[in-house]
Amino acid sequence: MSGNTLGNLFAVTNFGESHGPAIGCVIDGCPPGMPLSEADIQPELDRRRPGTSKFVTQRNEADQVEILSGVYQGLTTGTPICLLIRNTDQRSKDYGDIAQSFRPGHADYTYWRKYGVRDPRGGGRSSARLTAPTVAAGAVARKWLKERHGTTFHGCMTHVGELAIGFEGWEHVPNNPFFAPVADVSAIEDYMNALRKRGDSCGARLRVTARHMPVGLGEPIYDRLDADIAHALMGLNAVKGVEIGDGFASVAHQGSAHGDSLLPGGTFESNRDGGVLGGISTGQDLEVAIAIKPTSSILVPRASLNTEGQPVEVITKGRHDPCVGIRATPIAEALLALVVMEHALRHRAQCGDVAVPAGFGAAAP
Amino acid sequence: MSGNTLGNLFAVTNFGESHGPAIGCVIDGCPPGMPLSEADIQPELDRRRPGTSKFVTQRNEADQVEILSGVYQGLTTGTPICLLIRNTDQRSKDYGDIAQSFRPGHADYTYWRKYGVRDPRGGGRSSARLTAPTVAAGAVARKWLKERHGTTFHGCMTHVGELAIGFEGWEHVPNNPFFAPVADVSAIEDYMNALRKRGDSCGARLRVTARHMPVGLGEPIYDRLDADIAHALMGLNAVKGVEIGDGFASVAHQGSAHGDSLLPGGTFESNRDGGVLGGISTGQDLEVAIAIKPTSSILVPRASLNTEGQPVEVITKGRHDPCVGIRATPIAEALLALVVMEHALRHRAQCGDVAVPAGFGAAAP
Amino acid sequence: MSGNTLGNLFAVTNFGESHGPAIGCVIDGCPPGMPLSEADIQPELDRRRPGTSKFVTQRNEADQVEILSGVYQGLTTGTPICLLIRNTDQRSKDYGDIAQSFRPGHADYTYWRKYGVRDPRGGGRSSARLTAPTVAAGAVARKWLKERHGTTFHGCMTHVGELAIGFEGWEHVPNNPFFAPVADVSAIEDYMNALRKRGDSCGARLRVTARHMPVGLGEPIYDRLDADIAHALMGLNAVKGVEIGDGFASVAHQGSAHGDSLLPGGTFESNRDGGVLGGISTGQDLEVAIAIKPTSSILVPRASLNTEGQPVEVITKGRHDPCVGIRATPIAEALLALVVMEHALRHRAQCGDVAVPAGFGAAAP
Amino acid sequence: MSGNTLGNLFAVTNFGESHGPAIGCVIDGCPPGMPLSEADIQPELDRRRPGTSKFVTQRNEADQVEILSGVYQGLTTGTPICLLIRNTDQRSKDYGDIAQSFRPGHADYTYWRKYGVRDPRGGGRSSARLTAPTVAAGAVARKWLKERHGTTFHGCMTHVGELAIGFEGWEHVPNNPFFAPVADVSAIEDYMNALRKRGDSCGARLRVTARHMPVGLGEPIYDRLDADIAHALMGLNAVKGVEIGDGFASVAHQGSAHGDSLLPGGTFESNRDGGVLGGISTGQDLEVAIAIKPTSSILVPRASLNTEGQPVEVITKGRHDPCVGIRATPIAEALLALVVMEHALRHRAQCGDVAVPAGFGAAAP
Repeated sequence: MSGNTLGNLFAVTNFGESHGPAIGCVIDGCPPGMPLSEADIQPELDRRRPGTSKFVTQRNEADQVEILSGVYQGLTTGTPICLLIRNTDQRSKDYGDIAQSFRPGHADYTYWRKYGVRDPRGGGRSSARLTAPTVAAGAVARKWLKERHGTTFHGCMTHVGELAIGFEGWEHVPNNPFFAPVADVSAIEDYMNALRKRGDSCGARLRVTARHMPVGLGEPIYDRLDADIAHALMGLNAVKGVEIGDGFASVAHQGSAHGDSLLPGGTFESNRDGGVLGGISTGQDLEVAIAIKPTSSILVPRASLNTEGQPVEVITKGRHDPCVGIRATPIAEALLALVVMEHALRHRAQCGDVAVPAGFGAAAP
Repeated sequence: MSGNTLGNLFAVTNFGESHGPAIGCVIDGCPPGMPLSEADIQPELDRRRPGTSKFVTQRNEADQVEILSGVYQGLTTGTPICLLIRNTDQRSKDYGDIAQSFRPGHADYTYWRKYGVRDPRGGGRSSARLTAPTVAAGAVARKWLKERHGTTFHGCMTHVGELAIGFEGWEHVPNNPFFAPVADVSAIEDYMNALRKRGDSCGARLRVTARHMPVGLGEPIYDRLDADIAHALMGLNAVKGVEIGDGFASVAHQGSAHGDSLLPGGTFESNRDGGVLGGISTGQDLEVAIAIKPTSSILVPRASLNTEGQPVEVITKGRHDPCVGIRATPIAEALLALVVMEHALRHRAQCGDVAVPAGFGAAAP
Repeated sequence: MSGNTLGNLFAVTNFGESHGPAIGCVIDGCPPGMPLSEADIQPELDRRRPGTSKFVTQRNEADQVEILSGVYQGLTTGTPICLLIRNTDQRSKDYGDIAQSFRPGHADYTYWRKYGVRDPRGGGRSSARLTAPTVAAGAVARKWLKERHGTTFHGCMTHVGELAIGFEGWEHVPNNPFFAPVADVSAIEDYMNALRKRGDSCGARLRVTARHMPVGLGEPIYDRLDADIAHALMGLNAVKGVEIGDGFASVAHQGSAHGDSLLPGGTFESNRDGGVLGGISTGQDLEVAIAIKPTSSILVPRASLNTEGQPVEVITKGRHDPCVGIRATPIAEALLALVVMEHALRHRAQCGDVAVPAGFGAAAP
Repeated sequence: MSGNTLGNLFAVTNFGESHGPAIGCVIDGCPPGMPLSEADIQPELDRRRPGTSKFVTQRNEADQVEILSGVYQGLTTGTPICLLIRNTDQRSKDYGDIAQSFRPGHADYTYWRKYGVRDPRGGGRSSARLTAPTVAAGAVARKWLKERHGTTFHGCMTHVGELAIGFEGWEHVPNNPFFAPVADVSAIEDYMNALRKRGDSCGARLRVTARHMPVGLGEPIYDRLDADIAHALMGLNAVKGVEIGDGFASVAHQGSAHGDSLLPGGTFESNRDGGVLGGISTGQDLEVAIAIKPTSSILVPRASLNTEGQPVEVITKGRHDPCVGIRATPIAEALLALVVMEHALRHRAQCGDVAVPAGFGAAAP
């Protein structure tokens, strides 16, 4: 139950601080015999990497991952895989001014109150930098799920601040630094430029999806698939809301229209439930949306307190993302993959023998 | 990691099916020496109980809880507390017609695909009836948190279907079967009457809050307080969305306005973050909203499949809630309490020695 | 991590006190589709039941198990199985004299110090009666392992007090109340009669074994199969020692003689390691021995303290086993089965795809 | 439940292989605010280090530990502590001959059968080298327990092969490479020299103890303190038996003599139960003994199989400990400390408020 571990059968234990010597994770439970090298992981880290456009933090980190264990002669051995990422571009002096005061809306205050001590350099453990090990672990899960079930994970930004982006096609996502599903990102760039000029930050809304899902993943009560998805994604820095399927729009629905009718062969007429019924996967695409709040590290001065309890004005210099949502797409995909991986392993532990019934074509996991 | 357990230090293991002999739970980890009897638990079960108005299922269950263990001479002993609720009003014949076919939007299908076998009587394990043990366990957590930290939990319905209810005051909530914070519920009754006449169901939106929260509850990464809240509440039957604080509205916010400024004494100017920063409680009220979809057990005929994979039309007779959100308020409060309880115990395990800093008046947990 | 749960994938949560209304357990993780009824469980409970001879406690408990959940139409559904055993023959007045004082060598003292409160009736939660739910859960695990892998579990008493029993054959074990592998138990009876006459108690040594073991169960470090066996068996009341294979005799061995040589087909020349190498099963029989201390509930007066810290003399009347080892055989078998079950499920989660190599005939799990 | 993690509240996740780039662990749950640096950990690693005498492996590893996270300005921050130890003296060619065949009595075979693939270099993950991270994590637990409760951990070798060592005093233990509690180790040296000359290996018996124990640590059923001690120590490489207190000698005891009588002030007349009653600590010293089998990496030729299933003769060259028990004392101490740490944190989570009763002088944890 260690608080910094995600999953039990595919357990990812995350460690590190933004400006410490290194960050990383240990994956315990990866099935043996899967080909794995740094080259399988690095591309996902590169998608999340800082410094890729002028709209994200200018910190220059190679985010080079090193596999320290669990792989021999290019194959996973079934033993724990430690993934290490050295921090190389720490400039801790940038943060000197916030060591003794609290950014409004930031974990500065709660870490200090919880632990009585905190590492303020770059936000320490609360930095979004700590999502890199999650992305690395997610790449391992994605590889296994792709090879075994054909399952793939996809995400895009649908809103940035007040701007609704629209959806023109998944093919546009890899072609712009916003993970936006549109051909022309000039409106986004204009929005972000205006924001940067004001020294301000904004929120974002993302969509994440899993395709070619196994049927039957999830537990009846408490550890449902949707519950674990919500846990993983609400646990991502700055996320304040999670929806599955139609989410909050379901409130105004009526049952006669909402329920996704089953069609012959075990397909569905619609996917308002986002691929989960009763906490268990239907085989339809998982459809998840998350709300990301604006970062609290901004140049606009804000009223706050210092550690003596005295009022201060806080301005956050240093290198920050004006919209943490921009780089969040690969992270959200990784988190979704980790949840699916956990339940895929759990499924074969408990229900590995259950056969696909005749007339329901989808392959069981 | 058993899938039907919530929490680790205050671990609630849920068992039972809607029409089996009994439902219940085992609570492992309740601190010793707390006065506890059935009278502490029954009132919460009565709030959730079916048959309390014509707008909820007419199943007539006393939902009488029995403490089977863990209490001696009126005090908790620190050993597991088993809470048992006998099922008394099963009418399984009502469900005969759905044993071989799947309600659109219901767990019927996914349970069958996952396990190859399912108990169809009253929805079996996927029935909302299984929230009763959660409510019972929540009552135990609520008592301890109230006595030790003064923490209390409150919820209300804010939307039913297309109808926004408004907020006139918490004092109205106990006075109507909708848990609505308004004096006059005739609009809600009219809405529900029209719905029942059509044999249809609708969704709902609920607000849940915790007051007098300890500061410092939650883990940095993965098992954050907000993540665990999202897990618990998304795991509730029919929930499709969870928000903390301003939730999805945060997307359109800018950092200069969003961050909650700290005021002298450790209070805050606003609570847009809903009492959680960086996954750790601030001491402000927890503010959570959930979206509940319309139930799939309706009289309106729907197209579906049977277990042979053949197209059928499904009509669900039997006794059902046309809006499961109506009775969900005490359940959502209980789930929030269970999450806070878990983190309160975890906090004193790890950070029990951390003192409240001078100038920050709020008592640490 | 709740302290009263054994296992994660096949998680058994134990509840109850000796003289409370009921004892029982919840099994979470049993694979679906297995035929199961009380008739599969009751025989194992009957083997452990009190009152079966004059050498065990005369408490008259039917130990009738009731399945409250998780089974539908005679098949496990994959959902939690609650097993309930009502207490019927409580005579709490027998224990009035020990409510305020501590039996030397008994949990009376430690429970009181840990929790500040305890249920003294019949030893409360520390009673050996709480092994009944373990036996019941073990029966479920045994059934699944037998059906799927052919694995069976066997135990016998090898020493009672100073008396070495010898081994004449497994066929004698069911034919006497001592689970002794000998035809003539008169020596044991004489020993026990003399002991009873003195109002004293004695220890015992048991052997437990699993046959037709799957190969490859266990984790490399920490949660090794042998470690989990030691955990389960040392956790049994009054156990003070656990050995695997040659156990403490291995200390005097030399490597040239100790190592079990592999023979063609994946069999072994000997089994000094008791079926486990590097924490992982070899496919040989698991061989385990345990040491059970004499019970502390005796008629011989002993010096002790009361809850005021004052010296008292303690005599324990009431109904007690003069040798708790006598009834421990079915319990030890059940515990071994629960550990094997956990690792069998874990194995198919992580390594389900690993094939049996050519030339190594034993079937993989 | 990841298999390579020890503990839940003080969770140690171990990673690495003998000849991979590095080994290490992540500690999640260390209380914040404790002074910690590499200098607190290195001395314990140095006690376990290879190459310290001619009777242990000649592999020359500095075993230099690096703290990668969780410490800021010399204080623990409450966040995960990653401890890294680079492997520097790998000579994998020494092991080429065992990559395709199995040492009798070694994990070679079971890893290969479990995973279908294994890292044979230096035993890969089954190497005793992987105990170094355990020792490092144990040093952190020992520091906290010493500072908070005054608890200390001590171990010594009591038997090497057929040779009983005797006990002259703890003060001798640091003065010889055998951790032997005697002034003159020439008999041990003679025994070991003869063994080395034969190219053989031998077993050992160790004693481990904890002093100044808190009262009340442990759970009633399953996760008892003694059960967790047995789990931790049976999980150590080559251990085949664990005893608490009088262990297997208790079998021949009678209750009238065995039970440790309580004396005024909450002390005891004897400690036959080794500091644990009913799974919960009494406050007496924990007394544990373990049996270690002879290592299977010997120069004496043995019959075995290769991966093709063909008979081969195996001789293990390379650098090996002829008695792995020699270096096991600091490891066993560390494991005992980790178990006590886990239960100390668990105790303050659940029973933190229970007061020491008047007349029972020992301080509660």
